[in-house]
Amino acid sequence: MSKNFLYNDNIGFCDLLDYMGEDLDIVNSARVSFDVSHAKLEDRDEKLIKYLYRNKHTSPFEHCTMKFACKVPLFVARQHMRHRTWSYNEVSRRYTDVNLEFYTPREFRAQAKTNRQASIHDGMLTNPVVKTTSGSTQDWITRADEALLSHTRKSVKLYNTFLEKGICREQARMVLPQNMYCHYIATANLLNVLKFIGLRNKPDAQWEIKVLAEQMGAFVQELFPTAWEAFTENTK
Amino acid sequence: MSKNFLYNDNIGFCDLLDYMGEDLDIVNSARVSFDVSHAKLEDRDEKLIKYLYRNKHTSPFEHCTMKFACKVPLFVARQHMRHRTWSYNEVSRRYTDVNLEFYTPREFRAQAKTNRQASIHDGMLTNPVVKTTSGSTQDWITRADEALLSHTRKSVKLYNTFLEKGICREQARMVLPQNMYCHYIATANLLNVLKFIGLRNKPDAQWEIKVLAEQMGAFVQELFPTAWEAFTENTK
Amino acid sequence: MSKNFLYNDNIGFCDLLDYMGEDLDIVNSARVSFDVSHAKLEDRDEKLIKYLYRNKHTSPFEHCTMKFACKVPLFVARQHMRHRTWSYNEVSRRYTDVNLEFYTPREFRAQAKTNRQASIHDGMLTNPVVKTTSGSTQDWITRADEALLSHTRKSVKLYNTFLEKGICREQARMVLPQNMYCHYIATANLLNVLKFIGLRNKPDAQWEIKVLAEQMGAFVQELFPTAWEAFTENTK
Amino acid sequence: MSKNFLYNDNIGFCDLLDYMGEDLDIVNSARVSFDVSHAKLEDRDEKLIKYLYRNKHTSPFEHCTMKFACKVPLFVARQHMRHRTWSYNEVSRRYTDVNLEFYTPREFRAQAKTNRQASIHDGMLTNPVVKTTSGSTQDWITRADEALLSHTRKSVKLYNTFLEKGICREQARMVLPQNMYCHYIATANLLNVLKFIGLRNKPDAQWEIKVLAEQMGAFVQELFPTAWEAFTENTK
Repeated sequence: MSKNFLYNDNIGFCDLLDYMGEDLDIVNSARVSFDVSHAKLEDRDEKLIKYLYRNKHTSPFEHCTMKFACKVPLFVARQHMRHRTWSYNEVSRRYTDVNLEFYTPREFRAQAKTNRQASIHDGMLTNPVVKTTSGSTQDWITRADEALLSHTRKSVKLYNTFLEKGICREQARMVLPQNMYCHYIATANLLNVLKFIGLRNKPDAQWEIKVLAEQMGAFVQELFPTAWEAFTENTK
Repeated sequence: MSKNFLYNDNIGFCDLLDYMGEDLDIVNSARVSFDVSHAKLEDRDEKLIKYLYRNKHTSPFEHCTMKFACKVPLFVARQHMRHRTWSYNEVSRRYTDVNLEFYTPREFRAQAKTNRQASIHDGMLTNPVVKTTSGSTQDWITRADEALLSHTRKSVKLYNTFLEKGICREQARMVLPQNMYCHYIATANLLNVLKFIGLRNKPDAQWEIKVLAEQMGAFVQELFPTAWEAFTENTK
Repeated sequence: MSKNFLYNDNIGFCDLLDYMGEDLDIVNSARVSFDVSHAKLEDRDEKLIKYLYRNKHTSPFEHCTMKFACKVPLFVARQHMRHRTWSYNEVSRRYTDVNLEFYTPREFRAQAKTNRQASIHDGMLTNPVVKTTSGSTQDWITRADEALLSHTRKSVKLYNTFLEKGICREQARMVLPQNMYCHYIATANLLNVLKFIGLRNKPDAQWEIKVLAEQMGAFVQELFPTAWEAFTENTK
Repeated sequence: MSKNFLYNDNIGFCDLLDYMGEDLDIVNSARVSFDVSHAKLEDRDEKLIKYLYRNKHTSPFEHCTMKFACKVPLFVARQHMRHRTWSYNEVSRRYTDVNLEFYTPREFRAQAKTNRQASIHDGMLTNPVVKTTSGSTQDWITRADEALLSHTRKSVKLYNTFLEKGICREQARMVLPQNMYCHYIATANLLNVLKFIGLRNKPDAQWEIKVLAEQMGAFVQELFPTAWEAFTENTK
């Protein structure tokens, strides 16, 4: 599939590397309960997939697998890796000090008033917009990018000095800010991909991980269209 | 792949239904740590696979997946399903009462003297042989098959009577003996397939599950030859 | 806690052996997010527990643990052990041939007409009742107990003969019917105890496992009353 | 138990908050296989615990649980949270911007020559020492602390400016360096605590996580002395 750029900075991405199975495999895994197998997806198979998902008979969704390459900022990678049913392999900053890249958001968001953990933006599928309380703050915000970039550059410079002076990579990395990009491979079965999307493509999730969840959702929709319908029908 | 009959009764089997990945994917998952990827498996990649397995850096083995269809006796299925990292879907005796089949071992084994849980047989990869203490017991053993078959037939007859009289399947099944065959789909990543084989293809495992582990091992060897070498080198 | 007899046959039971934590630990695990801890459960803590469960912020429920001793028929144990987040240790019929016990249901249930997998009974919390289509079948049903008992006795007799003749336990057990009781220890964190109850204390679950789920629910209610309320409010 | 300070900066710690079980529970969980239970730990029980661990019969170790409070630098927390069998709850920098603290290592380590991922230090249980190639580098190293502190202070200042200007916490945090302390609660069963220690208290692990593994090991040794012996006898 074509590479998908996230975050409008031409750095982050979520690619599908490999997968196993299709909608038909879900019903055939389920129908092993009745000792029956179909060769082609029929209308009643689609109904069965939706019935299974709706009634939490989710084990048949575990025999399909998806493998992604992800490149996202550290704070997004940390949220992703809290999902313990996935398998991960990540570029290690103990091993390598090359290809350091950093996230610079296209827009900064304001702190939400009512939800302590959230930010204000215009809904789930659109880009976040800057909401500020006054013109002068707005002026400052337009300079936040610059402050972030300058801070990032200084951090990398200190990191390189540490390395030049002989300090080990595993310690030197601690000066790097958390907008550092993480590159990793992530594999899960279809059920756990859907669980991830269900928990992270929500209004109260951080925008940066919702974007990741949406892109994974697009891959699911393409490869497992009926499972995707079942999922969306059961997700408010 | 060709269907594999287990247990010499033309009933049990372990088929590979689907899989994802190859040896090369293991090294490329590992090399994401150095931000490096190879297009073709090289000698040093094979060394890396063995290094990873030997040093318990096992996460790169989790991005390959194998999906099996298994048909084994109930007591083997129960041992298999104790492995909690696998995904399973099984013919349910709450749903269906057709296609009942039962295991009749080609040979009975004697109780081991020293290991309370084991039986006596001639090593891991050969068929078990009957070891008896006396001629008269041997005579009886030759009739054990007959006794098992007769018992199985009576059990099925009682089961069918229960169903005819209107007793629900989910209760009627309780009269069926544990040599009943279970048919299920089982999926796991390569690491957990190897863990299963490592625990079940051992001298103190029950012969009937060792046969299952061996057949899975044959599939691993065919699909992931270097991973299989790494595994066998680290398994006494 | 007092021992609980299931199934009215004085054999099956579900005991609480040990546990860790209380409702307060759930909120304090959650409040670590805000770097705050309470010494005593307050009203707003109860609200927080319910908020967390309702919004699927379930990780704070994982720091409490429950450990049970269960003795249930084989087909119930198999359903329980499909829950892969639990830890289990079970009496092994490879090791021991003593203390064989078998389930004889107080009542047989009829096959449900509409739900292929279910049986007919009078709701979730009451004992199942026999529903039969005609008087003559009813007569037969009253003799089903007898048939089951007789079958069980013959099975045990054949099992003992197999052992006497020197056949290993691990093979001999295959003649035993599936109403055989299994005795095991089962441990899970509170979240996964609740997930088990949620999936097994449902109208379409087999009565015999619903009884187990109910008893576990009673222990949860006693030890974690607020978590239990949160759970029941979110379970239709 | 008494609070344990890690890293010599009076900030990091690993406390035991709660636990369930003792050595005796391991053997009784194992002995459920023979339908036997002991009231007091005997010599042969200790032998059994060691036999079980040595032969990878590890399920009896899963019925004991340990719950820790940890405060470690971000890069250590990330390594810990790669262990997917544990339960975690962490202070969220989406929720709160108070109590920011940062790790300043007592000593910097040099990059290892042969092992790309490691640093040079004097063995597993002692503090790491600075190894440098020349006097002038040594001079610089003595000023590395200062550089790290200054960088950390500037990062916090920028973070606070971002917040004052109205930028949401979940974005502002991205300027914070990775020596930021993370505070979290971590729970696992004894088997998975031992697996963590086995993988992280190794020569090629980063010193900062080895210290965490050692402290957890001290708690295991105090609470489960026989299990700890079994573990150390099987860990090179």
